[in-house]
Amino acid sequence: MKALRFEFLSDNTAGACPEALSALSAHNQGFMPGYGADVVTRQAADAVRALLDADADVYFIASGTAGNALACAALCRSFEAVLAHEQAHLITHETGAANFFGQGLCVRGLAGPQGKIDSEALRAEMSLPHAANRQSAAALSLTNATECGTVYTTAELTRLCALATECGLRVHVDGARLANAMAAGFDARMLGRIGVDILVLGGTKSGAPLSDAIVLLNKGMSRRFDARLKQAGQLCSKARFLAAPWLGLLEDRGEEETAWILHARHANAMARKLAASMPYRVLYPVDANCVFVEMDEATFERLQSAGWRMSRFNAGSVRFVCSWAVTDEAVEELIHTLRSLG
Amino acid sequence: MKALRFEFLSDNTAGACPEALSALSAHNQGFMPGYGADVVTRQAADAVRALLDADADVYFIASGTAGNALACAALCRSFEAVLAHEQAHLITHETGAANFFGQGLCVRGLAGPQGKIDSEALRAEMSLPHAANRQSAAALSLTNATECGTVYTTAELTRLCALATECGLRVHVDGARLANAMAAGFDARMLGRIGVDILVLGGTKSGAPLSDAIVLLNKGMSRRFDARLKQAGQLCSKARFLAAPWLGLLEDRGEEETAWILHARHANAMARKLAASMPYRVLYPVDANCVFVEMDEATFERLQSAGWRMSRFNAGSVRFVCSWAVTDEAVEELIHTLRSLG
Amino acid sequence: MKALRFEFLSDNTAGACPEALSALSAHNQGFMPGYGADVVTRQAADAVRALLDADADVYFIASGTAGNALACAALCRSFEAVLAHEQAHLITHETGAANFFGQGLCVRGLAGPQGKIDSEALRAEMSLPHAANRQSAAALSLTNATECGTVYTTAELTRLCALATECGLRVHVDGARLANAMAAGFDARMLGRIGVDILVLGGTKSGAPLSDAIVLLNKGMSRRFDARLKQAGQLCSKARFLAAPWLGLLEDRGEEETAWILHARHANAMARKLAASMPYRVLYPVDANCVFVEMDEATFERLQSAGWRMSRFNAGSVRFVCSWAVTDEAVEELIHTLRSLG
Amino acid sequence: MKALRFEFLSDNTAGACPEALSALSAHNQGFMPGYGADVVTRQAADAVRALLDADADVYFIASGTAGNALACAALCRSFEAVLAHEQAHLITHETGAANFFGQGLCVRGLAGPQGKIDSEALRAEMSLPHAANRQSAAALSLTNATECGTVYTTAELTRLCALATECGLRVHVDGARLANAMAAGFDARMLGRIGVDILVLGGTKSGAPLSDAIVLLNKGMSRRFDARLKQAGQLCSKARFLAAPWLGLLEDRGEEETAWILHARHANAMARKLAASMPYRVLYPVDANCVFVEMDEATFERLQSAGWRMSRFNAGSVRFVCSWAVTDEAVEELIHTLRSLG
Repeated sequence: MKALRFEFLSDNTAGACPEALSALSAHNQGFMPGYGADVVTRQAADAVRALLDADADVYFIASGTAGNALACAALCRSFEAVLAHEQAHLITHETGAANFFGQGLCVRGLAGPQGKIDSEALRAEMSLPHAANRQSAAALSLTNATECGTVYTTAELTRLCALATECGLRVHVDGARLANAMAAGFDARMLGRIGVDILVLGGTKSGAPLSDAIVLLNKGMSRRFDARLKQAGQLCSKARFLAAPWLGLLEDRGEEETAWILHARHANAMARKLAASMPYRVLYPVDANCVFVEMDEATFERLQSAGWRMSRFNAGSVRFVCSWAVTDEAVEELIHTLRSLG
Repeated sequence: MKALRFEFLSDNTAGACPEALSALSAHNQGFMPGYGADVVTRQAADAVRALLDADADVYFIASGTAGNALACAALCRSFEAVLAHEQAHLITHETGAANFFGQGLCVRGLAGPQGKIDSEALRAEMSLPHAANRQSAAALSLTNATECGTVYTTAELTRLCALATECGLRVHVDGARLANAMAAGFDARMLGRIGVDILVLGGTKSGAPLSDAIVLLNKGMSRRFDARLKQAGQLCSKARFLAAPWLGLLEDRGEEETAWILHARHANAMARKLAASMPYRVLYPVDANCVFVEMDEATFERLQSAGWRMSRFNAGSVRFVCSWAVTDEAVEELIHTLRSLG
Repeated sequence: MKALRFEFLSDNTAGACPEALSALSAHNQGFMPGYGADVVTRQAADAVRALLDADADVYFIASGTAGNALACAALCRSFEAVLAHEQAHLITHETGAANFFGQGLCVRGLAGPQGKIDSEALRAEMSLPHAANRQSAAALSLTNATECGTVYTTAELTRLCALATECGLRVHVDGARLANAMAAGFDARMLGRIGVDILVLGGTKSGAPLSDAIVLLNKGMSRRFDARLKQAGQLCSKARFLAAPWLGLLEDRGEEETAWILHARHANAMARKLAASMPYRVLYPVDANCVFVEMDEATFERLQSAGWRMSRFNAGSVRFVCSWAVTDEAVEELIHTLRSLG
Repeated sequence: MKALRFEFLSDNTAGACPEALSALSAHNQGFMPGYGADVVTRQAADAVRALLDADADVYFIASGTAGNALACAALCRSFEAVLAHEQAHLITHETGAANFFGQGLCVRGLAGPQGKIDSEALRAEMSLPHAANRQSAAALSLTNATECGTVYTTAELTRLCALATECGLRVHVDGARLANAMAAGFDARMLGRIGVDILVLGGTKSGAPLSDAIVLLNKGMSRRFDARLKQAGQLCSKARFLAAPWLGLLEDRGEEETAWILHARHANAMARKLAASMPYRVLYPVDANCVFVEMDEATFERLQSAGWRMSRFNAGSVRFVCSWAVTDEAVEELIHTLRSLG
């Protein structure tokens, strides 16, 4: 039986990068208080603040889905709605976690090309008057890099945030792949200056074993947030193990760039390499680490029979994701297989 | 300034034990599907089933609080009550997580000496007729080892489960310290035979970096439980990192016992050693890894001034917890300090 | 200023019918236990059981929205989905009440002409495999009369229920206008025999001042339902006032039909009369008491300027609803106005 | 068989008073928009504002339990606590409704004699530091008249509210029997001036068929509250029927006092009359319309055998409640029976 190949199924099929894993081992020694009151957590939070150049409150959690859901629940009441791109992970892949943590709040999809919210769609939604029998919008959720592998430029995101603020919406950013967006040129230090209230920052997809961060850029939301997390099952006792990998990822290495950026840049480069030789139509600009191509069902099945595992994205298309761990060889082998299917 | 000593504050102030950490590193290689569909997760679930000698469904999660809360939510509807010992962690330390995940369900405390539920208190509660304006009991939650450091014997737990079943209650066991109970002689293989529906099994306090398991002994509860976890933010993508430590902890080592039991036995022994030389009144039998002593406020403050950190347990008493990592030397140093306070 | 005319805005703009109001007054005398333990509630529940020819549990509540929401919450867990027609009131007009009471459950819209669910759309949805990251369907919600003013025939509803049962779905019927469906020939006595679990039966739109009924046709759902209602704020203390109107509506009057049927028949007849003379294109068969017509924005505004109040239904169409209280004269006056707009 | 006597079981065993019922009938005529946009609702809200001399937002609902629960949910987040007297209806009789609507918030009981919160108990609770693993207090709930039939004086309530404000707590008043407190001299016009955020005002127990009011004295809480109510199943379509009774109760009758006060004064007088001739020990001052007496089980059973129905209040005591409808004769008959039991 053919060995299965999970490299391109998602960026979470990879293990932890060496920097993250060795930081985890290094900080295993000794006794520390739990629940985030330890020095490792404090240092990791400092590193995230430095990354974002923001005086934010930072909490490390085990699940990005929980992070997004708690962000929505903090920004939007049960009888209100969060607006997000209709392809947002929040809507399509999180089993209604935001609706659960938000006690029935609704996440309403907005259209827009290439995974980016169309500002006209946002304006149209916001032009609807409030009515008691409908969940009016209270927050906007933006994803960068997007679910289509594109990246909002700093200017694009700034404009959407300005529009959101003008409309009285609070703003959440799902940054599961913010590292890839940053490697593509997005300036994450802007997030705290353009009205983003909460960022969920992805460590897991960026090389951590298992850790994401809720970043409260709007510190007005911080009151008793530790209790919020504890009640939600997201305040882990041995918190150092969620924090330590960030020290490896974000460590200042002087001349050399951080593992954070280097790994993301590698992943993006692998995606571009894959796209460049792709024998199927590529659907969206390959700004980050994902490649979407048109593929009919029969071809997809032959590709699977060859051992490769990927996700379908809508009908008729396939998503290939490159993590920090994907190698040149793997990309070449995949291209070889793809060419042989035709 | 004196170095702070966190050894006895809780069993979660320790790092991961070597066996857990090296299993985590060993399983970092290669690509695997996420969300628990990987081989590491499958093997770890097998190991838990073997430990319990039960054909159960096993899910690894990052928070024992979430595990207990999801168990309550599965066993009890919002307009019903879970019964638990009035000292149960569920009631005293989890910020209403069960109430949150259970949409307003109530956890009602039952009295009983030494952290064990008194069966008469349970009978009294169950003798109350159902009424629309009150949350009637639907489930019983038992903790072993208990919050007072005692251990229900197999016979005691069997009797309480039989009574629960007779009363129409479903049963949850909080096994955050089940390893310590097992090291003290409790037969965990009975759990699946005496009517326990859900066990939350503690890995974190037993030497894992960060992992507990929800064990559905009653497989009738398993339908769509993966979606339940995903929605609740407890289905981690890189699931292997929650599973791998269990392979280290539970690995069959032939003649030698598992790390699971060896570490728990060591922790229990350290607690007994501490109790044996304790210059203050010990409040409960030291069956497992915790020692509770009577201590007035002034003495407690002097102990803290000496750098030691512990939890108060009710007014007038102090809890000392021994983890797998506590050394003979640390116990001796603590005893030395305690003697010097008098 | 022109007097505003609310006759056709909804069937809840009417007062209570004389039979309902006089029953309410008649049962005002004397002292009775609260919370539904009174004789008036018992008799009204008997009358509903007789209407449906079903041994069901019946609870009177003050809000049909709450009824639908509690039904969904009873049939579907938070990580599952209810399927309903995309025009269902549940989806379009209830502010996510089902999502709130159901702790984040999702209501997914199915297409189908004239407000009726297309069985192919249902089959397509049910052909999707279960996945952890998606809310799988657990229940089907059907509305009769539909939101488009059409009526499922007994055969149509039976077929959909059979399909639901075959797919493992439980079934809710929103019967806010079941009286109108019955007046149009729908046999409500079938509901308990074709797999419907919960019916929410509309009294408010049928002539009660304010009362709907949750009818548990599947009595397996009844356990502690009184506590369910109390916790949900739907167990009113002076319950007789929710029950008494039903005695007026459903009173057996020998040769003469019940007020229930007579009023619904009248409302349906007024709708047909309106449709028959309607100078705009009627969009759906007028089976019950609503008429939907195509109308551009300018015409709609002129109609409003003439004092009439109605609801827009999607872009470009208008809904006219006839209650028990609408008179021939009102219909004629409306037609007169409509003709004058052209 | 002896006719059962429900007069003293609760104040909700009475029907509607004549003034409420005739207002309901009077406003039955004509067509009005639903969901509270009608003129009857507007006038009734004006009448409540006049009663309280406050520029508040007023919403009529069908259940006081829902009112209290929604108030708690508005004042306190899921990971926080509401403080209330340990005998508060909220805690003892509402099936965890506040916990349900508040997504797991907790209502913590405070001690205090005669149903009134002891300010020292409140200070003690508020002296506890915030901790992540505990639900910190966010709101105070006060009941006037209390569950023990006593009435906070204006000065007492003012002092408690001042203390709450000083502690950063928001304030809810459960005014299910505020009419009785007012008849006993409590100045309800103070409520809006001493820091009360939300009052739930009882109409049902004061003579309405079925109606209570949520009064947002703190108008900062009003945003989208209509959607809040709709989602919670508390925005009734034929809202006039919840509003009209208030017009009867609160109608300005010139020289004669309102039905609201006259009925409450009568109920209070009946309670005093009962207490004055009571052959058992009366437990609390009879400030309002309830009398609590010490009674052993055997006597209670004999009283029940004589046909009278009352509630037990704690072990060993019985509660007698007088509504607007209780007559001198009924009180005398009850006293006669009570004397005969001895």
